Amino acid sequence: MQKRRRKFYGWGYEGEEVSNDEIAGFEKAWTRLLGVTGFEPVPFPSAEMIRLRAPRIAVPESLKSICTVDHRERLYHTYGASTIDVARAIRGEFDNPPDVVAYPDSEDDIVALFRWCEDANLAAVPYGGGTSVVGGVNPPTHDRYRGVVTIDMQNFDKVLEIDQTSQAARIQAGVLGPHLEQQLKASGLTLRFFLQAWEFSSLGGWIATRAAGHFATAYTQIDDHVESLRVVTPAGNIESRRFPVSGAGPNPDRMFLGSEGALGIITEAWVKLHRRPTHRRMTSVRFADYDRAVEAVRVISQSGLNPSNARLVEREEAEYTGSSDGTYDILVLGFESADHPVDVWMQRALEICGDFGGQWNDNALKDNDVGRDASAKSWRDKFLRGPALREHAIARGVMRETMETAITWDRFARLREHVKAETHRAIKEVTGRPGSVTCRFTHIYPDGPAPYFTWFAYGDKRRIPEQYMAIKQIAEQSMVDAGGTVTHHHALGRDHRPWYDKERPELFCSALRAAKQTFDPHAILNPGILFDPS
Amino acid sequence: MQKRRRKFYGWGYEGEEVSNDEIAGFEKAWTRLLGVTGFEPVPFPSAEMIRLRAPRIAVPESLKSICTVDHRERLYHTYGASTIDVARAIRGEFDNPPDVVAYPDSEDDIVALFRWCEDANLAAVPYGGGTSVVGGVNPPTHDRYRGVVTIDMQNFDKVLEIDQTSQAARIQAGVLGPHLEQQLKASGLTLRFFLQAWEFSSLGGWIATRAAGHFATAYTQIDDHVESLRVVTPAGNIESRRFPVSGAGPNPDRMFLGSEGALGIITEAWVKLHRRPTHRRMTSVRFADYDRAVEAVRVISQSGLNPSNARLVEREEAEYTGSSDGTYDILVLGFESADHPVDVWMQRALEICGDFGGQWNDNALKDNDVGRDASAKSWRDKFLRGPALREHAIARGVMRETMETAITWDRFARLREHVKAETHRAIKEVTGRPGSVTCRFTHIYPDGPAPYFTWFAYGDKRRIPEQYMAIKQIAEQSMVDAGGTVTHHHALGRDHRPWYDKERPELFCSALRAAKQTFDPHAILNPGILFDPS
Repeated sequence: MQKRRRKFYGWGYEGEEVSNDEIAGFEKAWTRLLGVTGFEPVPFPSAEMIRLRAPRIAVPESLKSICTVDHRERLYHTYGASTIDVARAIRGEFDNPPDVVAYPDSEDDIVALFRWCEDANLAAVPYGGGTSVVGGVNPPTHDRYRGVVTIDMQNFDKVLEIDQTSQAARIQAGVLGPHLEQQLKASGLTLRFFLQAWEFSSLGGWIATRAAGHFATAYTQIDDHVESLRVVTPAGNIESRRFPVSGAGPNPDRMFLGSEGALGIITEAWVKLHRRPTHRRMTSVRFADYDRAVEAVRVISQSGLNPSNARLVEREEAEYTGSSDGTYDILVLGFESADHPVDVWMQRALEICGDFGGQWNDNALKDNDVGRDASAKSWRDKFLRGPALREHAIARGVMRETMETAITWDRFARLREHVKAETHRAIKEVTGRPGSVTCRFTHIYPDGPAPYFTWFAYGDKRRIPEQYMAIKQIAEQSMVDAGGTVTHHHALGRDHRPWYDKERPELFCSALRAAKQTFDPHAILNPGILFDPS
Repeated sequence: MQKRRRKFYGWGYEGEEVSNDEIAGFEKAWTRLLGVTGFEPVPFPSAEMIRLRAPRIAVPESLKSICTVDHRERLYHTYGASTIDVARAIRGEFDNPPDVVAYPDSEDDIVALFRWCEDANLAAVPYGGGTSVVGGVNPPTHDRYRGVVTIDMQNFDKVLEIDQTSQAARIQAGVLGPHLEQQLKASGLTLRFFLQAWEFSSLGGWIATRAAGHFATAYTQIDDHVESLRVVTPAGNIESRRFPVSGAGPNPDRMFLGSEGALGIITEAWVKLHRRPTHRRMTSVRFADYDRAVEAVRVISQSGLNPSNARLVEREEAEYTGSSDGTYDILVLGFESADHPVDVWMQRALEICGDFGGQWNDNALKDNDVGRDASAKSWRDKFLRGPALREHAIARGVMRETMETAITWDRFARLREHVKAETHRAIKEVTGRPGSVTCRFTHIYPDGPAPYFTWFAYGDKRRIPEQYMAIKQIAEQSMVDAGGTVTHHHALGRDHRPWYDKERPELFCSALRAAKQTFDPHAILNPGILFDPS
């Protein structure tokens, strides 16, 4: 059973409600953004009122101690955390819940669950923190399976070993962000992998989905932190050796980074850590000309300065988060180090900004308190509250979607223009009214940015899933048409499959299928992820 | 045919001989190192005196224009550049030459060659620059093949496209280091991937073997430079999309990085480039205590300063290269940037060195001329001449082997001690006399160094291959026993297979086999690489 009960239709723990004041603040922002006069939310569902399909399968005696068919557990594990998931949950639609939820305590438990799934022809859905926004943890609907068992990894939650000298740790994959950092704290080391869903996502989830953390450069993806993995597959266990790097053949870990539970369940990993930063500088730079701001960020990305933050936020989005009056774009720029003062780094980065017309407040640079810059703080606060507000937005007919990509610098301007135009068009067509589409950079690389698009639309609060999907289809397609990858860090799940199917080389997919056949000969693992079962 | 004829038994182009003076200088060093009084070299072989097995296969009419059975071509393509290769060549042993050497001009040519190999049951050996030191390009001996065709990629030698904005280029995979840089020169961009074999190794070879360049941190492996690949496999072509990074499923490029020609032939790649550095600082730091020097380097590796050079050279090796009088270890430390002066970076790194007893000459830091530091220059000059001296050493009974690994910091001291002890023991047992075994760092990571061991032994110049293999067996085993990877950047080839077979997870190998079956259903490509044909 869940250690602490999470809401089955939205974000966070039961009982942790967003205050009326905070909702009122957001309502005001949405009103302004979408030209709506007021909101009347639909009510959230209660678990008692939802009728679930009876479990289609019986749990074998030997597995009863780690399995449950509890009503709330099945409700909770029906969905991830995407807008469409939450919108369906709010409508009370739980048509395809897992039949059973399992909480293994050991690798042997996982193996026993795999055996059961193979023997009984069940699909097994690995489950970390449940924050997928792409349909990665939703039970599949393929009718070749007699039922679905969701394997929740929450009990794999320990930091097993810390290597202070090499700054690395061996950690169980089911641990969520806060509990991971809490266990590392005494060591002075930290993974510092602060993605938006940090509180409710797991190390194994980050690895399986190739998540990206808050570092804008250098250590962007979890890929960059993995030293070695342990993976339990239906065909046996895989443990890679722990090296800083190796040149011995194709890297085994890279087959599981991005495998999204389709090839095995990651049970533990050695990951590289950082010392907690002691020197920090953060500021926000204002730009009157967006194209020149992009140029500044490009030059910074190619400078070798490696800022920890470099989030270029368009004026429209900056206005929404209260970081701009709407007449300028802002670049949230930060440096941090556990080794040396970073003033020289910041000064050079600002000099580059100045070359392209950027302006900043010198006072914000005078002390080590990164919370001093009001624009940066305002942006960050809104950012962190995003997931908690999702269900409240949806209940009011406000659709908010984020889609991220990565593209080389030479093609970025065209991509942004195309995505914004197409998404505006889609919103208008689907909802009959204008919406908002904005772009920011979450991560930057010497050869290109990771643009992150946010769109808002005001729809019919009874038809959110349908309207949302209609807009998303067009928006995603525009991003891919313009040359971007279908995902920089939200992963594929089932929702991104149509675009992934075109992005990945066909023959590579055949090789992946062959690899899956090796690891998972009965095709029980997360069917529909990466490719469909044949 | 080769554009410019290379020596078939050693390093470099025909006619480019090492001067007697240079050889005399090295002889003096070897004399001192190995306690030998003088050398009498065996002569190098002449091509005319070597009889080759007649080609076992006839070239089909349609392929005659791109194939040759020329005597010298077959001699030249019989070996790579390892000590054992050169020693066998000097003994005139060419028992297993390729039957045919092919020079495709296009991907269609490669496909036609694959069809021929499949139909006639031939092994196809992809060939880049021929500098493998691990038996990666030697024709296989498996008797299931009727013959061997070496596919030399030298005609794929063009830079096809340069993206100045994103600092990247699309480049054909057969191009060698100098020709690649020459074509980039006008753009002001550079790959700056200066490995020791740079002059005679190819981009495709670097990618296929996961080579490492001269950057000590950040951009160490070619892996870090690849945006996308084109690969021709017997089952069809694969082209990955060009993104700075993507989170969409397992990365297809990572399956070919390290595939060493066993899964397909890489024909082109988009690679990330750098601007040519305009700011440089380099110096050498002297340490009286080796363990403290290691600590200094560890702290630097974890500082985020990212030096371009950080080569810690043991005193014995530094004395051999004339960079030390043998009483201190040296750290060759360098920073470079195309964006900003690097003095602050260097100062902080030196401060760290000072914390651990390092000493340096402040004068060396005063100007931008990296050649100013005499110790660093002396070390570098000897390093670059290494490959050219190999055949001359072998002809004199001097065996020189380098083996590299990577290991986390916590296990490094034990590894070094064990490898040195075991290799010394092996040299004594095999040759009856003491040799030299030294260690340096070629690359450093926050979680551990890439130690590079060099051993010298004076053997029987008629029995070098046998003696060399006997020593190498023990030396490699000691490295792996102590927890190091079998290779950081020399790759696997056929020579490292025994250790690789234990290092890689067995089940991962099964998945690789399945992938190979997809790409290469007739198992024609480089058999024996990664695993044996079943």
